[in-house]
Amino acid sequence: MESEEPASPEPVRRRPGGRAARVREAVLAAAAEAVIEHGVAKLTIADVAARAGVNETTVYRRWGTRENLVLDALRTASDQGIPVPDTGDVHTDLTTFATALADYLATPLGHAVGRAAVLGADDPALAEAWRTFWQARLDQAAVMIHRAVDRGELPAGTDAALAVELVAAPVQSRALLGHRAAEPGFAGRLAAAVLDGLRGR
Amino acid sequence: MESEEPASPEPVRRRPGGRAARVREAVLAAAAEAVIEHGVAKLTIADVAARAGVNETTVYRRWGTRENLVLDALRTASDQGIPVPDTGDVHTDLTTFATALADYLATPLGHAVGRAAVLGADDPALAEAWRTFWQARLDQAAVMIHRAVDRGELPAGTDAALAVELVAAPVQSRALLGHRAAEPGFAGRLAAAVLDGLRGR
Repeated sequence: MESEEPASPEPVRRRPGGRAARVREAVLAAAAEAVIEHGVAKLTIADVAARAGVNETTVYRRWGTRENLVLDALRTASDQGIPVPDTGDVHTDLTTFATALADYLATPLGHAVGRAAVLGADDPALAEAWRTFWQARLDQAAVMIHRAVDRGELPAGTDAALAVELVAAPVQSRALLGHRAAEPGFAGRLAAAVLDGLRGR
Repeated sequence: MESEEPASPEPVRRRPGGRAARVREAVLAAAAEAVIEHGVAKLTIADVAARAGVNETTVYRRWGTRENLVLDALRTASDQGIPVPDTGDVHTDLTTFATALADYLATPLGHAVGRAAVLGADDPALAEAWRTFWQARLDQAAVMIHRAVDRGELPAGTDAALAVELVAAPVQSRALLGHRAAEPGFAGRLAAAVLDGLRGR
């Protein structure tokens, strides 16, 4: 909580242009920019504060640690870059999600995030933040599967976490390992294969 | 062809302990060791030759370029580390393959190969070698699917490349991105999901 904004018994109305929101947006954008340029391991709060034009103490007060800042920046960027669709049809949802993920991983930020995650294994301070990041992404995307179960498109008891992994992992592998973009139609074929299996219906 | 071994009209019988085989094995092992220590980008033929106790010219004569040497070393190590099973049952084959892949990616060499591939995008000279490497791995593993089609376990026209991606990618993603090992039973659940789909049969 910023000291300029004392706690209020009324719900805080955050105007889009409010100072706190502007600072938050500027710092997260600066952190994302720093990740693109140098990767996560070299990100410093001093550098991010300078890029955002704010005091270091402002960043420390709001995020506390470098790890929290990185996590918030990557989560925000990924939430914006990979929205979880809700079209009312599970095949369309999964196809849209896989397409958005492929598009995001092809952006400079998405590429940097992927590389940073792979290298994150060398940084014990960040490893837990990465686990939290991926778990949050998986939980968020699992909503597509829960909704499909509620609609009767998928059987009760469908393993939502595994379902999301099956759709996301081939897209991630292609972007990170294969140096091969997902060709047109790949997301749809992937979604169909995950839903119906190789044995077909 | 080594100059010590002139071309012969007779098929060359390579004794397992023959000099050519010993040199090849020593150089590939040295290259794998160098990859584990420094990653692919920093591998030099001079270093590999020194580790293997052979002349640089021997390495150049046999492999020609650094890229060929890296590719041969990684392919050989991966062939040994991730055999393609042939059990007569597609679920068992895919489970065994996913398990072997997870085990391989948990070794120092497998870990280094994964990281090197991700970073390989920065090295244009290696990018093509990586594409060749992954394509060869996919083609090799696709035999499991072709055999299953021949046995009538999978429909004719099953997309073998996509099938292999569906099984391999979640294992790769966990090892490289998630910092989360495949738990006991994961490979079997993965194989079942890929074969039967989320909608079930």
